[in-house]
Parts: sequence; structure tokens; C-alpha cells
Amino acid sequence: MRKLLHEKVFSMLDNSSLREEDDAAVLSASGKGELVFTTDSFVVQPLFFPGGDIGHLAVCGTVNDIAMMGGVPEALSLAFIIESGLPLEIFEKIIESIKQTAEKAGAKIVTGDTKVVEKGQADKIYINTSGIGWKSGQAPTGWRDVRPGDAVIISGTIGHHGVAVLAARNELPFVTELKSDAAPVNKTVEKLLEKVPKIRWLRDPTRGGVAAALNELAEQTNLEIELDEAAIPVAEDVRGAAEILGLDPLYLANEGRFIVVCPPEKAGEVIQLIKEENPEIKPAKIGTVKPADSRGRVALSTNYGSSRIIDMPSGEQLPRIC
Amino acid sequence: MRKLLHEKVFSMLDNSSLREEDDAAVLSASGKGELVFTTDSFVVQPLFFPGGDIGHLAVCGTVNDIAMMGGVPEALSLAFIIESGLPLEIFEKIIESIKQTAEKAGAKIVTGDTKVVEKGQADKIYINTSGIGWKSGQAPTGWRDVRPGDAVIISGTIGHHGVAVLAARNELPFVTELKSDAAPVNKTVEKLLEKVPKIRWLRDPTRGGVAAALNELAEQTNLEIELDEAAIPVAEDVRGAAEILGLDPLYLANEGRFIVVCPPEKAGEVIQLIKEENPEIKPAKIGTVKPADSRGRVALSTNYGSSRIIDMPSGEQLPRIC
Repeated sequence: MRKLLHEKVFSMLDNSSLREEDDAAVLSASGKGELVFTTDSFVVQPLFFPGGDIGHLAVCGTVNDIAMMGGVPEALSLAFIIESGLPLEIFEKIIESIKQTAEKAGAKIVTGDTKVVEKGQADKIYINTSGIGWKSGQAPTGWRDVRPGDAVIISGTIGHHGVAVLAARNELPFVTELKSDAAPVNKTVEKLLEKVPKIRWLRDPTRGGVAAALNELAEQTNLEIELDEAAIPVAEDVRGAAEILGLDPLYLANEGRFIVVCPPEKAGEVIQLIKEENPEIKPAKIGTVKPADSRGRVALSTNYGSSRIIDMPSGEQLPRIC
Repeated sequence: MRKLLHEKVFSMLDNSSLREEDDAAVLSASGKGELVFTTDSFVVQPLFFPGGDIGHLAVCGTVNDIAMMGGVPEALSLAFIIESGLPLEIFEKIIESIKQTAEKAGAKIVTGDTKVVEKGQADKIYINTSGIGWKSGQAPTGWRDVRPGDAVIISGTIGHHGVAVLAARNELPFVTELKSDAAPVNKTVEKLLEKVPKIRWLRDPTRGGVAAALNELAEQTNLEIELDEAAIPVAEDVRGAAEILGLDPLYLANEGRFIVVCPPEKAGEVIQLIKEENPEIKPAKIGTVKPADSRGRVALSTNYGSSRIIDMPSGEQLPRIC
């Protein structure tokens, strides 16, 4: 439904500058540089989960979308839709979390809005954060520059956010230690773009996970992306939980990871830099861009020597994950 | 509750650039001019009402907030929270309306987001629109420049939006012809700022109406604002409906009107220009800024020769009006 609606919006608005493929728009302000502008609503359920909450997530999501376009997050807006009767202490906890995460990301919250709806007309609280940032000179060159041979790198272990939210919904009573990876990645990305030239493409693999993000890239470029299962970093507890639930970690949402596509000779530098910035998250080269016939797709070389296609997730695997 | 929460947000975030008094933030981008940035969520109920719908309103509200700060609306974001099961034709009607209003306002929709929540977790659809615009050289000088003697002008008859939405809720079965005033006012405001220098202050009197907007100004400036009841333009059908419901038109929401405060000698020009741009809406000088003692307030000289205080509305008079 989300996909259908999204396509509907784009096709009806018939706006060439509204590109479905990106999570943020880049606006050329003549003589003023390029401005990155993005929006996201957050409806995660439950509001609090191991490693984060809806407020933390709302800041991370928007800051990361700006960073993926090579923008330096400058200002955020904050709009609440609150169900009447939400306890004030819950609201305060969320605001406190927003404040801390925005500080960490170096983004200022500059404008806001609050709407209250009757009981039963929202699920406690929904948050929209929009954000703007200036594109730096070192932005990724974009999917049009992705070439066969390019390296595909993930900035760390995948699937934590998806599993942590499911655990908080009590769907995984056996998961106790696992935390969401939700974090602002903009500082690391800024350093990466500054120190390593020729980054082609960046994307935060949120809803739909790594599978959705790479399928979009494959579709745009008409190239094949070959992943190496053995190289994909998955924490043991995430792998265990995913297996029990029959979920593939490649499809699980991440909120503090990003994918880098870069020329093969840059892969080592990229991984090294991410490791220095975040010693704990285990970045890895997980695949390679390959030439393809007419339609782009994502293929996985499995641990058993076989190969299988990683399709675009159809519909929403896990509702209200962000 | 809204006011309480809003204050909470502002005080907890402790951000000097997040000013409660304005509906939009102005960001100085060094060497790049000043950027206006605003956000609003729309939860109006019902979705369609005479003279507009939630989509039309979402564009008007955000475009008008930018215009009030002297900004020229450039780009809008569009984020939907949709209740599962919303009929597609309703969504299409809303998108079509957004498209038309954005075109009329000259603002491009450049980025978007869609979240779907389960039945019973939203009331059909909520929309957030954020927007950015560049501040022109002719922006209002701001409330700090408001002086005793300044004229207070309203751009047209008041209260249409509030009454139209109530009528659509079937609370006013006798109201049949009345339409919301919702409209983008940015083109008129741009012309006004260009042609008439020294505009002090602009505000769109939405939630809480003219009463709330002017109370905020009186509070900021510590000046008194004296309104002349006989001069306030109220359409006959709005007056009739308000009387029956015991509502004061000064407190009713408007979505296509704006208040101008300017030096007294400029009042004639301002009214003339608004009339030329919008021959049908009846702009009028409705009051004067007066010196005051320590606390600013809004006073109304009534048609009966008496004077009464127009207080800040306490809480939300009419929920979900926008």
C-alpha cells in the first residue's frame, strides 16, 4: 500500500524535481550553493525500544537522510500529533531524547508544531521531522556514476533496529540484550566524504533493509549487484532471532548504518575510516557491482556455494518499524 | 494542552533560535541570505469542507507561514500518515488538490514520505507540510519595530474557515453557502512588501483567530492594541452562525487572511493594494496600536460605545480546525 501510494503521489504531482529514488531533495539556490531538504514521519510502535525511542529515531532518520545526499544537517523542524491523554512524563522523555540526539548530530531544532487529536485518533504520538542542510563540495557523485567493479560496503552489522523493535513488541520474549542501532551517522559520513574522494553513492538501509536499498540502486543503474553472504556482518543475536522468525537480516531495518558504493581501490580506506570513527560496528565489503543485461538485480552468493536473487521486498514486511 | 506541550518543547529544547512567537524560523546562511523554514501538521476533521480540504489547507498553511516572515515560498515537503483502508479515490482527490494549490502558490513539492498505520490508529489521513523560502529584502521589520499609533489592518472578512469546518461537521445544518477562506496569500504579500515599504508585522490569524494573533503581538510589545468593532469585516452568514453558536468571530480560524501592522500613513496604501489583488475580500483597518502600561492587551471598542478586553483564547476553542 505504501508503495502504491508513494507512486501515486509522485505520478500525480508530476514534478521532475521530486525524485522517488532519493530520500531527500537537492535544491540549487542560484549563487547560494545546494540545499538538501528532507521529511519523514515516525510512527514506530512501541514508542520506547531497546537502544532508542521515537524521538531519537525521528532525529536520526532525518539527519541521516541529509547526510546520505552529502549534506551537512543544519536545522530540523519538529511536528507532533499527540493523542489526547498521553502522559506528560512520556512526552518529556521523548523531548529529552530528541534534544540529546540533535546535540549529538550537531543539528538545531528551529521550528515546531503540535496538534492534539482525540483519544483513539492516533497511537499516543506521531512525530514528523523535516530537515535542511547545505551540500558540501564532497558529496557522492550519484548513482549515475556507479560502475561495474565498484565495491559495496556496509558500515556495520545489520538488522539490529528491526529485531529490537520486534523484541519490544513482545514478539521475541527470548531476546533480551539486543539494541537498536539507531544513531546519527552524519559526523562519520562528513569525515568519509572529506577524506576519501570519489564516493559514488550512499544510502541508509532503513525500511526494507539492505535488500530494498540495493534493489533500488540496481534498478536505477541497470547493473547487477552481487553480494557475498559470508561477508555480510550479522551479529549472533540478530541472526538467531531472524532465523527463529523466518526473517532475512538483509530485509531488516537499520537506523544507524549506511551503504557506501565506491571504486574498488577505495574500499580499504572507506572501511578503515569507518572503523576508526566507530570501533564497534564492524564495517565490511559485502559485494561488488557487476555488469548486467537489461534489468538490474541483486544476487547473493550463499555460504553453500549457490546463488539466489534478493528481490525487492513486496509491501511492508514489518509495519511501523520507524 | 497544546499550549502546555508547546511551551514544554520550547523550554526543554532550550534553543534560542526556536522562538515560540513565530510560526517559521529564519536562518542566516552566511553569505547566502536568509532562509525561512516552517512546519505544520494538518489533522482537520472532516477531510473535505466547503471551500477546501486537508490537502489544500496543508499547502496554504505552510506557504502562508513562510510569507508572513517575508519569505518567498520555494519548496515544500509532504508527509502522509494514512490509516489503512483509506479509499484510494479520497487520497487521489487530496493529492489533486495539493497539486493545484501548490501551483497557484508557485511552490514546488520536492520531497515526501508516506506511513501507513492500522485501522483505528489515525483518523483517515494526517498531512505534514514543511517548507522553505528565501527571505526577500522587503521583509517586515518585526514586532520590535511596532510603535504606538501604528495601524492594524485585516486583509479581509474573518471567520469563514472556522464556520465552514463546523458546518461540514454537521454542527450547523442551517449553513449552506458559506465557504472556507483557505487560500495561499503569498503572491499578495510579496506585492505588498515590494510596493509598500515599512510594513512592521504580518501574521496569518489561524488557530485562535485574530484574537490570538493580536494577543501575542500585544504580549511581545507590551503595547495595547485597540480594535474598533464596527470596522471589523464579518460576512453576514459568518456573523449569524457565530451568534447562534455563541462564538466570537475574532476567535474563529482563518486560513486565507493576514494581519498587517504598519505606520498609520501607510494604511491607505496597504488596503488599496490588497483590494486590487483580491477585489472580493474587503480589507479594513480594524484598530490602532496604543501605548500601554506594563502588560500588553487587546481592547475592543464595541458598537455600543463600551470597551471590553479580548483575552488570549484559553486552550483550543475548536479542535481539529486545521
